[in-house]
Amino acid sequence: MTDGKANRIGFIGTGIMGKPMVRNLVKAGYQVVVYNRSQSAIDELTAKSDAVTPAGSPEEVARAADTVILMLPDSPDVRDVVFGENGVLNGVREGFLLIDMSTIAPSTAIEVSTAVATAGGSALDAPVSGGDKGAIAGTLSIMVGGNETDVKRAMPLFEAMGKTIVHIGGPGAGQIAKACNQVMVAVNYAAVSEALVMAERSGVDPEKVAQVLGGGLANSRVLEMRGATMIKGDFQPGFRVDLHRKDLAIALATGRERQSALPITALVSQLYDALSATGGGQLDHSALITVIERMSGE
Amino acid sequence: MTDGKANRIGFIGTGIMGKPMVRNLVKAGYQVVVYNRSQSAIDELTAKSDAVTPAGSPEEVARAADTVILMLPDSPDVRDVVFGENGVLNGVREGFLLIDMSTIAPSTAIEVSTAVATAGGSALDAPVSGGDKGAIAGTLSIMVGGNETDVKRAMPLFEAMGKTIVHIGGPGAGQIAKACNQVMVAVNYAAVSEALVMAERSGVDPEKVAQVLGGGLANSRVLEMRGATMIKGDFQPGFRVDLHRKDLAIALATGRERQSALPITALVSQLYDALSATGGGQLDHSALITVIERMSGE
Amino acid sequence: MTDGKANRIGFIGTGIMGKPMVRNLVKAGYQVVVYNRSQSAIDELTAKSDAVTPAGSPEEVARAADTVILMLPDSPDVRDVVFGENGVLNGVREGFLLIDMSTIAPSTAIEVSTAVATAGGSALDAPVSGGDKGAIAGTLSIMVGGNETDVKRAMPLFEAMGKTIVHIGGPGAGQIAKACNQVMVAVNYAAVSEALVMAERSGVDPEKVAQVLGGGLANSRVLEMRGATMIKGDFQPGFRVDLHRKDLAIALATGRERQSALPITALVSQLYDALSATGGGQLDHSALITVIERMSGE
Amino acid sequence: MTDGKANRIGFIGTGIMGKPMVRNLVKAGYQVVVYNRSQSAIDELTAKSDAVTPAGSPEEVARAADTVILMLPDSPDVRDVVFGENGVLNGVREGFLLIDMSTIAPSTAIEVSTAVATAGGSALDAPVSGGDKGAIAGTLSIMVGGNETDVKRAMPLFEAMGKTIVHIGGPGAGQIAKACNQVMVAVNYAAVSEALVMAERSGVDPEKVAQVLGGGLANSRVLEMRGATMIKGDFQPGFRVDLHRKDLAIALATGRERQSALPITALVSQLYDALSATGGGQLDHSALITVIERMSGE
Repeated sequence: MTDGKANRIGFIGTGIMGKPMVRNLVKAGYQVVVYNRSQSAIDELTAKSDAVTPAGSPEEVARAADTVILMLPDSPDVRDVVFGENGVLNGVREGFLLIDMSTIAPSTAIEVSTAVATAGGSALDAPVSGGDKGAIAGTLSIMVGGNETDVKRAMPLFEAMGKTIVHIGGPGAGQIAKACNQVMVAVNYAAVSEALVMAERSGVDPEKVAQVLGGGLANSRVLEMRGATMIKGDFQPGFRVDLHRKDLAIALATGRERQSALPITALVSQLYDALSATGGGQLDHSALITVIERMSGE
Repeated sequence: MTDGKANRIGFIGTGIMGKPMVRNLVKAGYQVVVYNRSQSAIDELTAKSDAVTPAGSPEEVARAADTVILMLPDSPDVRDVVFGENGVLNGVREGFLLIDMSTIAPSTAIEVSTAVATAGGSALDAPVSGGDKGAIAGTLSIMVGGNETDVKRAMPLFEAMGKTIVHIGGPGAGQIAKACNQVMVAVNYAAVSEALVMAERSGVDPEKVAQVLGGGLANSRVLEMRGATMIKGDFQPGFRVDLHRKDLAIALATGRERQSALPITALVSQLYDALSATGGGQLDHSALITVIERMSGE
Repeated sequence: MTDGKANRIGFIGTGIMGKPMVRNLVKAGYQVVVYNRSQSAIDELTAKSDAVTPAGSPEEVARAADTVILMLPDSPDVRDVVFGENGVLNGVREGFLLIDMSTIAPSTAIEVSTAVATAGGSALDAPVSGGDKGAIAGTLSIMVGGNETDVKRAMPLFEAMGKTIVHIGGPGAGQIAKACNQVMVAVNYAAVSEALVMAERSGVDPEKVAQVLGGGLANSRVLEMRGATMIKGDFQPGFRVDLHRKDLAIALATGRERQSALPITALVSQLYDALSATGGGQLDHSALITVIERMSGE
Repeated sequence: MTDGKANRIGFIGTGIMGKPMVRNLVKAGYQVVVYNRSQSAIDELTAKSDAVTPAGSPEEVARAADTVILMLPDSPDVRDVVFGENGVLNGVREGFLLIDMSTIAPSTAIEVSTAVATAGGSALDAPVSGGDKGAIAGTLSIMVGGNETDVKRAMPLFEAMGKTIVHIGGPGAGQIAKACNQVMVAVNYAAVSEALVMAERSGVDPEKVAQVLGGGLANSRVLEMRGATMIKGDFQPGFRVDLHRKDLAIALATGRERQSALPITALVSQLYDALSATGGGQLDHSALITVIERMSGE
């Protein structure tokens, strides 16, 4: 590591999640070199802080910093940024660390990790949960896949952005954990949706049902956090349906590759697809309840 | 209410749940007249306490006490005890209150309530959650359907047996809430099962996944209480698969009657049926994970 | 058998199916004693033919004829007519044969068979497929459960009403075969629905797809008979959704009793329930395609 | 078209399907230039007929013939052969026609079609059904997507290999039809599986059930062709489970892209995955019944 770079971090992908994450890094004392496809997000960041400087391409970011964080929407975006023309891979060298915090396919994460290692560097997959609120508050949960040494090196960065940080396993393990997370959340939404619609269709106050069920084995974070808004029909995102659909497609593809049965997830995924097909793609994922309502005759 | 009866309660069905509930009533100062199909449970209760006395039939129980509690396995049992020869209905009179704490079909609960009202008495449906541990500890959750006045009258009894007591709505509402509870629990088990098997099949430590997921939106009481034992493969009941299957059949029948869609529950119910068909009917309901494991090639 | 009764048949339930079946029996030379809950259907039959005479109750029918056919909507109707006040059971005697051609639960069929046998008679379950068209044309498929001797005795009657007559097995076996039939038909409708909607949503002419698929392994009677009308959106019954829902509930209950997994049927049943909940209960069962269309954003 | 090439056809992919297709082309009088990844299949073909000559790469095939047929396992294989180093695309010129008879993703088919058109040629997607038996007998069903002119030009070739040839629509339409075919076949297998297992579990002879159901609306080609072998447990391929899984993955991805709901297919796909995970990947796809048997307690 050269002197000047020690405190300098690269960051690619400064959207709804990436922007506040950069701010938290700056707050923690880092210099951040950023790249984003659309310029406006960069301008906003550089205007507000001298610690943020722009770069012209992913490759430039990689050449400017020994540690580069990615926060991108999907697997193809990560592939473009890493393997594409002027991509990060061109700048990989000994001592270089790539931390991909995007939620992508575990198979892509492993491919990236292998390519970076072949080029002399190393990589972590470190997807997060907690949404934009967690990104702003610096309280993200971070699920990390990769080598112990690299995880240790990345820890101060993770601590600047998140609260619960768990080293899950080797390359790809972070993405596997995230896929598990998205499976659980989606299916728990289905549980709450079917139960509350049954209450309502049976002439019973769903709020009272939610109240008594919340005290027992039926309780879930989804019921606690979203039960009331689901009953009211308030589906302001939050986490959008179309993003969750992407994540469920990753989980289902992973299940196919790893011979892991996901019958319930497969069906919940179809219900989310139906929600998107009927115009709900931009709603909060708790809007799954409207699919069940519509199937129940509205 | 005649004098002698004021403190006397009838109790029909002194099985795993009923027996400790009777003991908690005795502790709270009640005299309890009990009836049970098999004699041994009655003998055990009467041997241990002078406050418990046996009766020869459901009708006798009803004639001996103004308030009678039922704790029976299923709808047909309740029908037998209420409508059968020497049944409770023969003893119903003005001022009589039937409290059915069994988990049965909401439609049967309403039928019972109507019949008791026609005979001059009144009825509550008041199913519980919390299992035999909750019954012993007196910490059951009780979901009550019926009239306000009757609920008030029953409250001291409920407080002797439970902790969270919620008056959900009119006749049948307690059973609806219980059906919602069983839907949520079953589907949450499916969520945890599919996610943890995917972790394991992907070579990732399911305990670490459970740990990080427990801190976020994916968390559920099922994950907290049963995640670790599901990973270990410890399926000591707890609540048996075949009982949960019965409850899911009630939920599905209710969905059909009330036009409430339960696609996910219908599928989870089939997985529970598969578990029972392959010999798991007497295991704890958390054993659902073994169905997913078997579908995943183990 | 007394002389006068030899050629006399009892028939209970003269609805859309029963009426033409009675006419075919008359055509074949039988005297038919009929009973029906609503009088109008009886009047219509007796007005048109001297061979049809009315009776005042199921019991009267049973006393008037040694062989009695039932053609009723559902299990509770059969129970009422057989076990109810003035029911058939009161008239059962040695040499008496009950032929239940209704589609009901196999468990009820077995219960009826046992009760009739206990009373000295015998019973067949003989549900049909082929609809009202088949009933009028006398070309029904008849699936028979019961003893060989009774099936032989009933054969001339079956031949007057149907074309394909198969003795499936002992008591209840006819109803099992019918349940299998309704499972296959429902799931085949799901197959055609999902495939044709995918064609249409992909901008491909579903008629051309139906044409080419009809020539290969994908073909089914459902595709042949209903593919074109499903594409056009013509859902004139035919066989109504709500009747098929009843039959699927029978199949699912049978699966639960006999430990037979029906995951796909369980889900298709939910889709039929959704169709009914959204107002389609009286449409032809081929209207299942509209559920898939609606889930696809139309 | 140059003189010498007029009667010459290129063929890439001479596996179980491709080999007999080449033979049928030779029978019809064509000279065939072949390429295959493994050499043995080529040697076998060239040894048996002077009309077959080998080429060193897909590009060489394209340079040697104005019309080139592909018969490859999956989308990535087609991409390699078309877009890869020494790929077909290098040889595309005006008047060149690529006929892709592989079963691949409609989106890949469209991508190939566009690329070939950009290079001055044209392309058809023309997947088949009928299996290796149909390939040998020259009785394949061929579902064609592309322009009318190209379809006319290809017709003599199609007629040498198939019987039912339907021009479905524009580029990709053939693959859409094939995806619809695979959906229908898979779901029809599920229908037959659940019905026959229910018969057997209920103590009823499944052969008799198959016999009577085959005469009515429940009938399907799957029941006719495979009912008896499914009952016997004879799962010699035929069409292998793992190939059908690939095709269902294509259908599900297409459903996601085109907003077409496939809830039943999604679940059947999971059952096929379970069959593969438990060691059945190389069995005939009719082995789906074993998954239902296993869920029913074997």
